[in-house]
Amino acid sequence: METGVTTELYPRERVGLVREAVAKAGLGAVLLTPGPDLRYVTGYDAKQLERLTCLAVPAEGEPFLVVPRLEVPAAQASPAGALGIELVPWDETEDPYALTAARLPRGRAKVAVADRMWAVMALRFRAALPDAEQVAAGPVLRGLRIRKSAAEVAALREAGAAIDRVHSRVPDLLEAGRTEREIGRDIADAIIAEGHAQVDFVIVGSGPNGANPHAELSDRAIRHGEPVVVDIGGTMPSGYCSDSTRNYCVGEPPAEYLAYYGVLEEAQRASSEAVRPGATPEAVDAAGRDIIAAAGYGEHFFHRTGHGIGLESHEDPYIVAGNREPLEPGMAFSIEPGIYPGPHGARIEDIVVCTEDGHEPLNVTGRGLVIVD
Amino acid sequence: METGVTTELYPRERVGLVREAVAKAGLGAVLLTPGPDLRYVTGYDAKQLERLTCLAVPAEGEPFLVVPRLEVPAAQASPAGALGIELVPWDETEDPYALTAARLPRGRAKVAVADRMWAVMALRFRAALPDAEQVAAGPVLRGLRIRKSAAEVAALREAGAAIDRVHSRVPDLLEAGRTEREIGRDIADAIIAEGHAQVDFVIVGSGPNGANPHAELSDRAIRHGEPVVVDIGGTMPSGYCSDSTRNYCVGEPPAEYLAYYGVLEEAQRASSEAVRPGATPEAVDAAGRDIIAAAGYGEHFFHRTGHGIGLESHEDPYIVAGNREPLEPGMAFSIEPGIYPGPHGARIEDIVVCTEDGHEPLNVTGRGLVIVD
Repeated sequence: METGVTTELYPRERVGLVREAVAKAGLGAVLLTPGPDLRYVTGYDAKQLERLTCLAVPAEGEPFLVVPRLEVPAAQASPAGALGIELVPWDETEDPYALTAARLPRGRAKVAVADRMWAVMALRFRAALPDAEQVAAGPVLRGLRIRKSAAEVAALREAGAAIDRVHSRVPDLLEAGRTEREIGRDIADAIIAEGHAQVDFVIVGSGPNGANPHAELSDRAIRHGEPVVVDIGGTMPSGYCSDSTRNYCVGEPPAEYLAYYGVLEEAQRASSEAVRPGATPEAVDAAGRDIIAAAGYGEHFFHRTGHGIGLESHEDPYIVAGNREPLEPGMAFSIEPGIYPGPHGARIEDIVVCTEDGHEPLNVTGRGLVIVD
Repeated sequence: METGVTTELYPRERVGLVREAVAKAGLGAVLLTPGPDLRYVTGYDAKQLERLTCLAVPAEGEPFLVVPRLEVPAAQASPAGALGIELVPWDETEDPYALTAARLPRGRAKVAVADRMWAVMALRFRAALPDAEQVAAGPVLRGLRIRKSAAEVAALREAGAAIDRVHSRVPDLLEAGRTEREIGRDIADAIIAEGHAQVDFVIVGSGPNGANPHAELSDRAIRHGEPVVVDIGGTMPSGYCSDSTRNYCVGEPPAEYLAYYGVLEEAQRASSEAVRPGATPEAVDAAGRDIIAAAGYGEHFFHRTGHGIGLESHEDPYIVAGNREPLEPGMAFSIEPGIYPGPHGARIEDIVVCTEDGHEPLNVTGRGLVIVD
């Protein structure tokens, strides 16, 4: 990645914004170990290891990055190295938790830990900061991470285009007699070939496996006339994720499948079109769900409509009944209703971004059933 | 993987042994989310997701597995499905933490959480179990996981043979002018081709980068006469990991390098030969470190001698000064001293298993410098 891109995607002012959010939340400090929060704040894609790496951002005082001495060169070479944050290296026989605690302001302040910090590390911090109440950092960073910047939307758009190119290749990989696993392996290769740094998941649900939304790749061979659900995603070198589902069939599918596929297309469109500033995730969910229910398939759509996406493939906001927090421009999430009556099923999934006056889909390959001859 | 192998590697009685360990530690229950602990206990290689999957093993009463309804088919198809553990599915709008808490015995008992549980989940459990003191599950499971069964040693031996085959291919990939990244990509492909399910890390440290033990792959081209450190590992379909380091040079290396390389070979041998039941990790570390120090390179060996390995590539026991817990048969770990004076460095790493009367190396390719013409 070029430095210019990095700076735009991971701007220097993030650390300061986090400090403001920490103070505003009435916290003493936030502690971020390797994972999406640390990457969001500093651009440092650090490895999650048993040796503690931790960015501490106190409400008052300077932030600092505790790093195992072995990882100092990696930290310095990362975008974090250019932020002017003090590196605090520790040696093999030192206690990095005590080292971190000693540099934090004293007192009974609350301390937030990264949502994905390993519990064993959070417990070590609890012991090292016995007077501090420990809370999750998610709510503190959420206000920043949930609204994507223009550069983040561009990164998600790039990820969307990459997974769209993979879907365009899928028809060539489908052939009656090939197994889900064989096809899945080719798709994984295509995910990398089309520019992702990492394959996050590959679902190739043929026939009855398509009725299981989280089917694992199996040795089942796909058959003529059986629909196949292909739900795929990866992480780009930028750190941002892709996720898109399309449906395929070698030959003509059964008539009853086509009947509900039309309903699903309509529902997916309705939920997408319900996206606008001020709409609630609950209403976006209901827009498609009501159509599916009215057509008599309500019991066969048993998962939420979508999940946020960014540096994590699943993050806030979740598009689910009960979530009434109004959408805002820059929020990015999946719209992926499904109908799974068996002995087959279907799901259509796009990533969309809430814009000033509606939504922008980041996946633009046709949403109709793709029939492969 | 065949079912026979699975049953041997992940025996049914594990859940019972964990329950005994929970009771013996004076805990009310242990809570295991997806990760190495859950896989160790049940064989279930569950994905780590924002939706809670959690095996609860109470000291009294029956264990149960809380699973998002979407994941029920995957859980049932996994080895966990054959253990007779009750599955407790939860729906999208339910609170799985409250659901878990309601099924646990009441009272002020301590509850252990998996070391690698996400902190946000541990905090949710803390709120759902306000009277329970939360502790790390590591010490509870450690007594089981740290001593590998014969089947686990066989799985580690298989992983060791696979990474040895990758090292045997490395000379064909090295050529002056190729970059670390190009070579690293070929090595990653070979790690998969030789039977791993996943690449965990690939270090190709050429020239000065060899003096950084955790060097990232770079676009630096390797040069004639410059030593290259190759430290690679992956995870096998069994779940068990490999990790081995060898040293290569295109053409003849500098004389001063050969001088310390001989010291390093001697140190690596001495630490390996110090492995036997009753020896301390500290003594194993010192056996090699003393040789390096006596030869005048002490300051250039600045990391611990090794780490345990199994379902995690780094786990207990750590071979480091201060660890005086005597070794026992079945403990498996790396022996990987290094000397990094710059402008080059070297490290030799084998995985070894403590046997009844000494050690068995699981990596058996030659430890000498491999000169590529």
